[in-house]
Amino acid sequence: MAVIDAVAEAVRASIGRGELPSIELPVRGLENVSYDAAEGYLELGDAIKLRTLTVNTVRSFAQTLRLMAASREMVQHDDFATKREAYYISKNWGDCRFDEQAESDAIMDDIEALASLHGLSREQLRFYPESHGGSVAGQLVVLDTDPVSGTHLEIDCANLGSGAYSIPRSVERLQFRTNAAFVLAIETGGMFQRLNNHRFWKNANCILVEMGGVPTRATRRFIRRLSDNCNLPVYCFVDCDPYGFANIYRTLKVGSGNAAHINRFFCVPRAQYLGVTPKDITEFGLEDATHPLSKTDIKRAQDALKNDPFFASTPAWIAAIEQLLNMGVRAEQQALAKWGLNYVIDEYLPRKLAHKESFLP
Amino acid sequence: MAVIDAVAEAVRASIGRGELPSIELPVRGLENVSYDAAEGYLELGDAIKLRTLTVNTVRSFAQTLRLMAASREMVQHDDFATKREAYYISKNWGDCRFDEQAESDAIMDDIEALASLHGLSREQLRFYPESHGGSVAGQLVVLDTDPVSGTHLEIDCANLGSGAYSIPRSVERLQFRTNAAFVLAIETGGMFQRLNNHRFWKNANCILVEMGGVPTRATRRFIRRLSDNCNLPVYCFVDCDPYGFANIYRTLKVGSGNAAHINRFFCVPRAQYLGVTPKDITEFGLEDATHPLSKTDIKRAQDALKNDPFFASTPAWIAAIEQLLNMGVRAEQQALAKWGLNYVIDEYLPRKLAHKESFLP
Repeated sequence: MAVIDAVAEAVRASIGRGELPSIELPVRGLENVSYDAAEGYLELGDAIKLRTLTVNTVRSFAQTLRLMAASREMVQHDDFATKREAYYISKNWGDCRFDEQAESDAIMDDIEALASLHGLSREQLRFYPESHGGSVAGQLVVLDTDPVSGTHLEIDCANLGSGAYSIPRSVERLQFRTNAAFVLAIETGGMFQRLNNHRFWKNANCILVEMGGVPTRATRRFIRRLSDNCNLPVYCFVDCDPYGFANIYRTLKVGSGNAAHINRFFCVPRAQYLGVTPKDITEFGLEDATHPLSKTDIKRAQDALKNDPFFASTPAWIAAIEQLLNMGVRAEQQALAKWGLNYVIDEYLPRKLAHKESFLP
Repeated sequence: MAVIDAVAEAVRASIGRGELPSIELPVRGLENVSYDAAEGYLELGDAIKLRTLTVNTVRSFAQTLRLMAASREMVQHDDFATKREAYYISKNWGDCRFDEQAESDAIMDDIEALASLHGLSREQLRFYPESHGGSVAGQLVVLDTDPVSGTHLEIDCANLGSGAYSIPRSVERLQFRTNAAFVLAIETGGMFQRLNNHRFWKNANCILVEMGGVPTRATRRFIRRLSDNCNLPVYCFVDCDPYGFANIYRTLKVGSGNAAHINRFFCVPRAQYLGVTPKDITEFGLEDATHPLSKTDIKRAQDALKNDPFFASTPAWIAAIEQLLNMGVRAEQQALAKWGLNYVIDEYLPRKLAHKESFLP
């Protein structure tokens, strides 16, 4: 709230001095992004754009201020809005109503980038994502409060049967209690259900998180906070293909290039890539359960090598991606079922976990 | 298991008699589907196709039997496989391995259709869907057992804080305890989070289910069993557009046309359409928060009127869809935010629930 008040104060002061008020916003986009291995995420540079009040910008200037005012009110009343709701709220703003959600999204991204410079995420401004959080099961007690009564609640993720804990859209208020040794972040829902139904997390002493493809903001932030607060490494178990490497794992570990202003909150620096690795395809005899790389796969892999600051600066990944391109095939997590449905539990994961030095960084 | 054994026995007997063995499978597809208002779902007709062992069918014949054998084994060992895993299992079947998942899916659909004649769903054959179940919060205790130890577990969906209960891929083993008056099935995750965070379910005495678009098999089956076992009506709260009517609500209530063999397990006959209705757009002053119907919207609405046996046989729906086409606009759930973020909780839902006779059938 202090951030919002400070911006509003600066605008008011300019007007008081008879100057045209303006708001300083960070430049978003790849030209203002770099990867710092020490920091562990794709980060926003120092480039700034000025939104000054002129005839041409009067509408977006007013919209920026009104959206910030809405955020301030939600903080005061402990409420929230999805991006879609934020768009509809504006329908009562008269001339400065948004005509398209793309407009309100762009301005929200600006505000988010501004707030990120002050260590605040969009969720803390009370704009929540629409998309679903993943599911969680295993050796973890989530500590939460009832949003209305404030009563303390404990959710034991080891006691949800064949079901799981569904991550809420904002995880900032959650705390954790666990003796687990690591977090296992899983790409597919089917694999998550298998490991959960067989209580893999009990013997392996871990926490299972279902990402369901590229993890959503809520899932990424949940894993990050869990890793930070409980000092846990995060092992990533996804398909062996360029999408698994460059979209799922890369997003989880260092964030995404076109949303660099949020990566500092959402990256998971302690993430490591357990598998499936290109080497696993031969070591676990999956050759006849592979599929040829598609053109899109090959392009994605080449892009990762050439244009992605994370992969380009990580020799082990360069070697792995080149190996995959040479093999010309991809392998899914489920391919392990070739050796029996529970080969993944009885053989694959124990062997991998016994050799953590073989994980990709 | 008795069904599988009976088919296997019949095949063996034919061979013993020196005849070519064959398996009787129901014809799937729209030409063998009808809507019976009394039954309340799109149901499979009596058409049968014979899969007889010949030179041309030897592979699919063998695959059908092997997949049924795999199902039998999973029932015996209390295990399961996703469709994708079932495809990979075949990689060790030598000549009758599946080359594409489309092959194994088609044969699984045949087996499922066969089993459905005996009152069995695919989940009971232990083939689970890959896709995520929805989330649940509110006045409900889910009774489950630990899949490994068999310990009895109670999951109180009123005590999950801002999080929720994530529905597992198979819900057959679940039981329920509740005093709720109804189930509210919600289209969007954002709306679910709003109603959950504000504990709407407490005052309204209900159970919230997040569908997240068209509900998955697990979500549909969960709602159906909840409605059956606890004698609860189900109110559906979705966007006012042809997709909300014809894809989301129709699928929940009566099932889908190209999967008629499963509708008897997955339809929710007690589902009613709470809103947003075309009438709500004027009654709740949402005119300036609407969007014009797209060409796809219009085509989908016309298709529903012309080709969909459920809508075509329901006068109230014909009137509603024609009204929407005349208005030429659609309105989302979130459009209610125009009157304030919690207008939906303070005004819209209470007014609608006070006039259940205005729900669409």
